[in-house]
Amino acid sequence: MDIKSYLEEKRGFINVYLKAYFASTMLPDALYKSITYSLFAGGKRIRPILALASYEACDGHAQDILPQAAALELIHTYSLIHDDLPSMDDDDLRRGQPTNHKVFGEAIAILSGDALLTEAFFMMSNMQSHDARSTMHDTGEEYHNHREHSPKYSSPITCRLLLRALSEVAFASGIRGMVGGQAQDILAENSEPDKETLDFIHLHKTAALIAASVRIGPILADSGTGRLNALTRYGESIGLAFQIVDDLLDVEGTTRELGKPVGSDRKKRKLTYPSLYGIDVARKKAEDCLTEALHALKEFSSSADPLREIAHYLVLRRH
Amino acid sequence: MDIKSYLEEKRGFINVYLKAYFASTMLPDALYKSITYSLFAGGKRIRPILALASYEACDGHAQDILPQAAALELIHTYSLIHDDLPSMDDDDLRRGQPTNHKVFGEAIAILSGDALLTEAFFMMSNMQSHDARSTMHDTGEEYHNHREHSPKYSSPITCRLLLRALSEVAFASGIRGMVGGQAQDILAENSEPDKETLDFIHLHKTAALIAASVRIGPILADSGTGRLNALTRYGESIGLAFQIVDDLLDVEGTTRELGKPVGSDRKKRKLTYPSLYGIDVARKKAEDCLTEALHALKEFSSSADPLREIAHYLVLRRH
Repeated sequence: MDIKSYLEEKRGFINVYLKAYFASTMLPDALYKSITYSLFAGGKRIRPILALASYEACDGHAQDILPQAAALELIHTYSLIHDDLPSMDDDDLRRGQPTNHKVFGEAIAILSGDALLTEAFFMMSNMQSHDARSTMHDTGEEYHNHREHSPKYSSPITCRLLLRALSEVAFASGIRGMVGGQAQDILAENSEPDKETLDFIHLHKTAALIAASVRIGPILADSGTGRLNALTRYGESIGLAFQIVDDLLDVEGTTRELGKPVGSDRKKRKLTYPSLYGIDVARKKAEDCLTEALHALKEFSSSADPLREIAHYLVLRRH
Repeated sequence: MDIKSYLEEKRGFINVYLKAYFASTMLPDALYKSITYSLFAGGKRIRPILALASYEACDGHAQDILPQAAALELIHTYSLIHDDLPSMDDDDLRRGQPTNHKVFGEAIAILSGDALLTEAFFMMSNMQSHDARSTMHDTGEEYHNHREHSPKYSSPITCRLLLRALSEVAFASGIRGMVGGQAQDILAENSEPDKETLDFIHLHKTAALIAASVRIGPILADSGTGRLNALTRYGESIGLAFQIVDDLLDVEGTTRELGKPVGSDRKKRKLTYPSLYGIDVARKKAEDCLTEALHALKEFSSSADPLREIAHYLVLRRH
């Protein structure tokens, strides 16, 4: 299969959905501009694509879960905006462009992240797309009718499965997932290298949301335990590989490829796989994860080929 | 009825639920300490109590919706932590104690807010309470079994209603609600007073989440349109009154009563009701909101007496 075409097609679906969702200006204007600046800055949409691909591997139609998949990109984008803040990683460049707070200021950057995170759960709950111009002024009957009876998008997925997928994503994003990992990453800066801490950071900061992105496929498809467990192993393996490869690129890549200064992790004395084990061992670990990910998919038919190709792509990418 | 006992009893329910939820330390420790520092700093639990009271006004049993009600306090607490940050309102005191970032630093304060917001949606989705010690290390079968089959709390509310309530709260908290209001508040500092901007800020920053807290009562009770509309009018009226009274207290109160320096709004040239219309007109407006709120409840029996008393309490409070 042609993985490039597959990724482009799925990225197109996600972008069309997100563009339509954020088509009407939301007030205040500065907040809306800040949100769309970061959301449409050329992200690869890896997490939404993983959700669509794992849903397809469970015989679902990708179009049925676009809101749930797209919501993952809102969460990812919020995490980048907050991670780049001066009090966190203090980064000036992201994807070759000035970071959000450099353009819009810290207050609006923090609020944009807050808004994206909140909107993700609204999007996942998928009850309706509110008209962007609706405000609290629409009270009483009109407000009620507008809110309850004007769905723009109706899902074929049951409420029970929507709730389960939302719960999954919230768990993976919070203190017991991504936020916990980012906090530990900040706390571990300039401290002595330590294997347990590094594992905690990797598994929580990046792998948790990636694994959840994969898991919502079988959850929304209401697949059985076997498929869910297999895809969980796949998701955790590529999630770990993804973070290791990110760390390797920070050491090996060029600024042009990365869109951010090379070696910025080392300058901050970040705890990474290459810094703790060296480049060769880190590269070997990423390849072991790839093997484990492919092994987890062994019972799946060709419907899981995109997942297989994505695993290769994530480990072998150059940026 | 004795409103003080009522508020104390309901506050007790919420505090017991929250204490149990956060009983096991979550890692990393600094993040957990920061979260519980702010969450258990003596908040009045107004939003959860409003949800419980409006659910009871619709003939529900308060205990059935504790997770949904308690989640509102997580969202409120996150908003306070982020609003107090140096790049936002730059406040050093909150409820008489140093603000979160003063104690734990900006990075952990931002992440604590992010974690509380995320956890709120996990709590509302109510699929299960994960064991705090579970991590991504529990892979495969064990992880799966743990996550899917160990609910500590099972809800009598259908998934459809849980999803609808969650959607309601997410909408009221995001760009078209609380975050939008806070952004406009920040953007309007030091600008010329303007009635439309003030209305936007009041309706979004505070009233939206308070109205949503009231609305999830009839939503979770699956009440009809009539009750939902009436409680919506009640919620929006007391939400607006609540913000106006807050602004009045900032002008009239003492530091001891408020737990923060008096006149801090004026020092920042915040746009408020008293600053735009004067104290007397603002006080009159709050009382009009109280009248409107009570009028909205006219079809309700004595089951809505707590809501009536809470409206009085919010408008007449001294801190």
